[in-house]
Amino acid sequence: MRLIGLDPGLRLTGWGVIDVDGNKLRHVAHGVVKVAAEGTLADRLCALFDGVAAVVEAQRPVEAAIEETFVNVNPASTLKLGQARGVVMLAPARAGLPVFEYATNLVKKSVTGAGHADKRQIAMMVGRLLPGVDATADAADALAVAICHAHHRATAKRVEAAQ
Amino acid sequence: MRLIGLDPGLRLTGWGVIDVDGNKLRHVAHGVVKVAAEGTLADRLCALFDGVAAVVEAQRPVEAAIEETFVNVNPASTLKLGQARGVVMLAPARAGLPVFEYATNLVKKSVTGAGHADKRQIAMMVGRLLPGVDATADAADALAVAICHAHHRATAKRVEAAQ
Repeated sequence: MRLIGLDPGLRLTGWGVIDVDGNKLRHVAHGVVKVAAEGTLADRLCALFDGVAAVVEAQRPVEAAIEETFVNVNPASTLKLGQARGVVMLAPARAGLPVFEYATNLVKKSVTGAGHADKRQIAMMVGRLLPGVDATADAADALAVAICHAHHRATAKRVEAAQ
Repeated sequence: MRLIGLDPGLRLTGWGVIDVDGNKLRHVAHGVVKVAAEGTLADRLCALFDGVAAVVEAQRPVEAAIEETFVNVNPASTLKLGQARGVVMLAPARAGLPVFEYATNLVKKSVTGAGHADKRQIAMMVGRLLPGVDATADAADALAVAICHAHHRATAKRVEAAQ
């Protein structure tokens, strides 16, 4: 069972792919889709979609997971992140994958045992849980979401949009 | 020169297509892409993208315009609208159309002469500017954005995403 975790952003979207076999997790690949800051918003959303779609096509995961987005107090930032997030979520969905969503605290707890770990701690634990992975990877958060999904997928619900 | 205006929302996305020939505007078509409230967010974003992409493919506009989004004080609503908006903007962009963005006040001013018109007033003026159009159409706002773009496209900039 191959899973992809995604950590969306307009400039940098982290992704991490793992294989799950019972309780065993194996690191497959990770990386970052980078979108140049120049260009129109529409062009940048295009590049973001194409980048994530290419990763999904190349890695062939069967399920996707994404972290619930922290809603900023700055509405303009929240709108911008929402636009990126919609496009990132669309890529696996259009490839036919079910997409699951996890609260940030559950993702942190899944890899560190606590709901309030910092980024460094998450990256370190991702490196322990997936031996051989560079713990400083930009994609550590995305791998953490994939690990969270591996632990919870049996009972998880797919993202339900409140009306 | 055929233009499409888009008024994005997760459940209802209005669209309106007009032809522009010098100062003359001609109504071509308008409608609403409706997405069922059931289903996962990813499924709904897929349906939204497919619906808008199908309109773009059928109507063959050469440029797209979208209204700047009002950023709500409710961050969760803003995030949700952002997700829909990113996907709606992606559909014409992936079809190769340049996508332009206009401030709400400019859209209102383009059709009513004032920057603070209400929805009813906009719908009425859209019906005057495009004779034969049902002024109560759900897509009146989308047609208003298309009209605004017809007036301003020579000097407009495409959507620039602040980094």
